[in-house]
Amino acid sequence: MLSPVFLHRPRCRNTGETIRVRARGTVGGVTSLVNHQIVLRRRPDGLLDPKDVEQVAVPAPELSDGEALVRNTFVGVDAAVRTWLDDRPGYLPPVGIGEPIRAAGVGEVVASRCDAYEVGDVVTTLSGFQEYVVVRDDVFTTVIPGVVDQLAMLSVYGSTGATAYFGMTDIGRPQEGETVVVSAAAGATGSLAGQIAKIAGARVVGIAGGAEKCRVVVEEFGFDACIDHRGDDLAAALREHCPKRVDVYFDNVGGPILDAVLGRLNQGGRVALCGIISSYLTGDHPGPANYVQLLARCGTMQGFNTLHNWDRFPEAFDALKRWEAEGRLVHREHVYDGLGFAVDALNGLFTGANIGKTVVKVSDPTT
Amino acid sequence: MLSPVFLHRPRCRNTGETIRVRARGTVGGVTSLVNHQIVLRRRPDGLLDPKDVEQVAVPAPELSDGEALVRNTFVGVDAAVRTWLDDRPGYLPPVGIGEPIRAAGVGEVVASRCDAYEVGDVVTTLSGFQEYVVVRDDVFTTVIPGVVDQLAMLSVYGSTGATAYFGMTDIGRPQEGETVVVSAAAGATGSLAGQIAKIAGARVVGIAGGAEKCRVVVEEFGFDACIDHRGDDLAAALREHCPKRVDVYFDNVGGPILDAVLGRLNQGGRVALCGIISSYLTGDHPGPANYVQLLARCGTMQGFNTLHNWDRFPEAFDALKRWEAEGRLVHREHVYDGLGFAVDALNGLFTGANIGKTVVKVSDPTT
Repeated sequence: MLSPVFLHRPRCRNTGETIRVRARGTVGGVTSLVNHQIVLRRRPDGLLDPKDVEQVAVPAPELSDGEALVRNTFVGVDAAVRTWLDDRPGYLPPVGIGEPIRAAGVGEVVASRCDAYEVGDVVTTLSGFQEYVVVRDDVFTTVIPGVVDQLAMLSVYGSTGATAYFGMTDIGRPQEGETVVVSAAAGATGSLAGQIAKIAGARVVGIAGGAEKCRVVVEEFGFDACIDHRGDDLAAALREHCPKRVDVYFDNVGGPILDAVLGRLNQGGRVALCGIISSYLTGDHPGPANYVQLLARCGTMQGFNTLHNWDRFPEAFDALKRWEAEGRLVHREHVYDGLGFAVDALNGLFTGANIGKTVVKVSDPTT
Repeated sequence: MLSPVFLHRPRCRNTGETIRVRARGTVGGVTSLVNHQIVLRRRPDGLLDPKDVEQVAVPAPELSDGEALVRNTFVGVDAAVRTWLDDRPGYLPPVGIGEPIRAAGVGEVVASRCDAYEVGDVVTTLSGFQEYVVVRDDVFTTVIPGVVDQLAMLSVYGSTGATAYFGMTDIGRPQEGETVVVSAAAGATGSLAGQIAKIAGARVVGIAGGAEKCRVVVEEFGFDACIDHRGDDLAAALREHCPKRVDVYFDNVGGPILDAVLGRLNQGGRVALCGIISSYLTGDHPGPANYVQLLARCGTMQGFNTLHNWDRFPEAFDALKRWEAEGRLVHREHVYDGLGFAVDALNGLFTGANIGKTVVKVSDPTT
């Protein structure tokens, strides 16, 4: 899931005047900014090998009319980033060899030749794994007014939070007393989705990999239980923790876990298909044989893409902010400090090393 | 899908009086009716072997208070009948060894000790493959007033018609100009479902097995095209006949055909899961790997069971009757003449021998 925030789409007009970039590295009024980037050298096979990428230093681009320069502070890492490294069609084209790895992030405007952006503005945009990015009047760039927590803009108040909100409230629609299962429950989206279901009054059971993640899911995120898919017999654990079967399943993983939960679906059950992290590395998507339970139990399985809901993002963020203020919703970020950790951060999504939203810190925020 | 009609559930009260059965075979006021039955002798493995069943002649049962005797005229044959022969749990228990094979049918009341039924009433009920059945105040038995076409009560005006109606209008929701695909398009449900989509203004493409069925689907049922899944390259044919992809898929078959159509799903596509005839013989349900298209295209796959809509059956039949009267809807029945053809009729569902609703004629209707 892409992570820009579409709250306020800037209307950018060319100013016609020349604006010098004023930032660290400027020498004698002439831009000499160095832009460190993590670029793709070859397409990975499964997990990233450090040799698949290279850290390079290139001059930051000169600004043309209608452009602004953003110094990136944090870059979000999600499974979509990995899919863009394969040479397969998707909703965005693959990252080219030699290009910086695409990722959504947050940053601060340090120079502007576009009156939609002022120096000092905090924006979310398609930053990429690099220190600087040029933005213009594009749909991916949004000015965030009054930001106090840039990290949270990539998790609960980015499309991660919106994805959890719309997937759970529009498709899952949990009712009081129903049973909700969330996979990748320690992850950025899953941890929020489960908490939203708790707020709706449901019994919420997470699925995560490893005892520590399961502990966090229950103790920090407040789920009623959490199944360790590495250690537990999944079918038996689902019977134990979901004695009244499963009314809602928020699926981030696909594969055998989806199949197992479908096998426990309740009459009228809803499955929100949010992701298929089990297959992103291989491109292999085994079909869930238990889809027949949709027929036997009048169930629904629905895929969604939060980007189609961007005009409703304010509704999601209003609710999430209210719940956070009431102490009913927590969010957690797993921050890798520096672009040099890009490969670790990305691989950590798939090896299960990360809890909460995975983020690479690129530079210190000033706000 | 079970085929009773739930329009008018009789309220049966015991009359307390003794009513003699008056029907052919009555000798000297004493019931001596012979009830020919097709009973299950052993559980079939795949298609039925003639030795799996036996035709027997037993005395028709004496009526007790609160019961009525129905002489069956036509018995409907659908895939559910085959599933009841396996020793697997379902929404009804398996048919026991030695019991008549369960099936829904239509018949005429020939004797009654229940004032909800009068001699001469036409009813739909769980007839079974036999000449006579005893009914009481049960949810499966419905008196049909003003019947002129008993055959149609098992097809368009039975749950077959209701299934096509609710599956297409509630889940498929075809819009003018959209593309709708229907599998088992020459079958009882598929032929009606496709016509309902045509009435909604959609482009309708059938999938059927064999050239003759495809001809009937286009020429008699009025589909825009029909793909022969036995002869055609399914993926290529879907590209050819669905150039704007598939907005609605009404799935009666599951298996590789479901997978192929999912691969051609349009943004926001809807899949109505009506049946999995490809797996009823084996109990084997391969998962559709292309379910990932639900995620990529924000699609929905929903199972349904028309029995849950029984209170809305009048809505379905009103619409179907109006369309038939307007000449926009045709229905066709494939009638096997006599209980002795029970095995052929049932196997014909799976070998593809039948077009339209498969029915076994048990006796001549008097209405």
